[in-house]
Amino acid sequence: MTQTKLFGGIEGGGTKFVCMVAADPQNIVDEIRFHTTTPSETIEQAVAFFEKYAHTHGLAAIGMASFGPVDLDKASPTFGHITTTPKPGWAFTDTISQLRQALSIPVAFELDVNAAAFGEYYWNAENRNLDPLVYFTIGTGIGAGVIVHGKLVHGLVHPEAGHMRIPHDLRADPFPGACPYHGDCFEGLACGPAIQQRWGQRAEKLPASHPAWDLEASYIAQALNNTICGLSPKRIVLGGGVMQQAGLVRLIQQKVQKLLNNYIHSTVITEQIDQYIVLPSLGNRSGVLGAIALARQEIEGK
Amino acid sequence: MTQTKLFGGIEGGGTKFVCMVAADPQNIVDEIRFHTTTPSETIEQAVAFFEKYAHTHGLAAIGMASFGPVDLDKASPTFGHITTTPKPGWAFTDTISQLRQALSIPVAFELDVNAAAFGEYYWNAENRNLDPLVYFTIGTGIGAGVIVHGKLVHGLVHPEAGHMRIPHDLRADPFPGACPYHGDCFEGLACGPAIQQRWGQRAEKLPASHPAWDLEASYIAQALNNTICGLSPKRIVLGGGVMQQAGLVRLIQQKVQKLLNNYIHSTVITEQIDQYIVLPSLGNRSGVLGAIALARQEIEGK
Repeated sequence: MTQTKLFGGIEGGGTKFVCMVAADPQNIVDEIRFHTTTPSETIEQAVAFFEKYAHTHGLAAIGMASFGPVDLDKASPTFGHITTTPKPGWAFTDTISQLRQALSIPVAFELDVNAAAFGEYYWNAENRNLDPLVYFTIGTGIGAGVIVHGKLVHGLVHPEAGHMRIPHDLRADPFPGACPYHGDCFEGLACGPAIQQRWGQRAEKLPASHPAWDLEASYIAQALNNTICGLSPKRIVLGGGVMQQAGLVRLIQQKVQKLLNNYIHSTVITEQIDQYIVLPSLGNRSGVLGAIALARQEIEGK
Repeated sequence: MTQTKLFGGIEGGGTKFVCMVAADPQNIVDEIRFHTTTPSETIEQAVAFFEKYAHTHGLAAIGMASFGPVDLDKASPTFGHITTTPKPGWAFTDTISQLRQALSIPVAFELDVNAAAFGEYYWNAENRNLDPLVYFTIGTGIGAGVIVHGKLVHGLVHPEAGHMRIPHDLRADPFPGACPYHGDCFEGLACGPAIQQRWGQRAEKLPASHPAWDLEASYIAQALNNTICGLSPKRIVLGGGVMQQAGLVRLIQQKVQKLLNNYIHSTVITEQIDQYIVLPSLGNRSGVLGAIALARQEIEGK
């Protein structure tokens, strides 16, 4: 009997880092969370956590799921770098080399939302048959990871689905949008900070009956309508802090059906929308378990 | 020396059929165009054209690029059927079986815009390295074919990119949109019939200085912005009758740059947009040559 291989996963966010040692979602050995401080201090803290497993349990590889923007081009000299982030001290940080040198094991690298998409795809047998799969995170920022033909889409840089433009009726919602680049793009209208700026209160403090949620569902439905028309995904997973609002996913499902207006002839949309637009099967661990999956794939291939 | 294999290609549109016999775009043997009448009469005319080559030249396979909506699910009992078209007599037409029975050779089947995307990808060595590639047709209708990781995306049904929703400023453009399902979706605002309804004149009769073209470019740029953010393609090809307007592609390129506002850090967008958003390299033959490519792939694999 071969011993089950263990992998390391990092979900490196702008606010906190989550580090995990696991074989798979059912076999999580250890997990820590700590605040993101300077790059060297934060990476050292991750290294310290993984070092004991690397030495005693033969940790096979690490997956790093990083906040962006990042360089995902393996042919680029700055592959695995966080690039133009406004986060102080973190612009042009080479996290991947620091991890490789300290731990002497292979390191897979991805954008955080891509890793979350991959986690939902890789660890969920049902999702493996629902390709293309799109995973949205709707929280402090908005982004999407896209799986097509079994692999993550990188493309020119990587998808930036939060920056789609959607209809914005200024009479109904005079809020000009919170995006410093685009004003009222999808993220500018619907991310957590936009909700807070529009209503003067943090999203999680707004009661379910507040009109904020109907408006929020409308904007998310517009973006999902565009994703459905643009790519014809077989499943859309909605993660991120804003999606923790009870009832929001149901409102979105109804509004997507209304927008599509029976144009797309599929009973999946007209009758089973609750199986089509879903919450993450890995809860709030899609990202770090996606990083574990990427580490495993780095060693074992598909 | 082996003889070069010949293939048949059909671009079956709602108005006209184009049939071609060719080995590749440099070796076109024969081509005819005729009006689309009833299904049986139209398919018989195609069969008559191909029959002589099938018998004397050993035609290896046929590719059929059909107007939609179509069933692309190979596991479905109605694979290769045109489904719910409003075109009289054509709803639920099984074109693929008629061709197979009459010609006794393999028949590949695709949606017309998918075949055009595949043609631009397959026959253009540069495009083979520019994956994801998105091909838009902007004409009587609007649609897109999407290539990711070397293959066409079908997904739940197939992309219907014309039905994305984009910002529509009713003060600047009070036209309510021409789409019977969605009113002012992308197709409803920007297809050929929408231009004609808005300005009271056919698109091809509007001079280059007419404000119609700036507005048209704005809507197309919005849809392209959403495609770039949603999928991060490495190239976007713009085909279809409306794109034959001289200067339109340049206007679109400028407006896409303005919408993205330097958010996506790639010199391809900031400096080489004329190489990023391009007209079809196969002119108005992307569809039928895509059908030839699909026929060839049906026999030879990738």
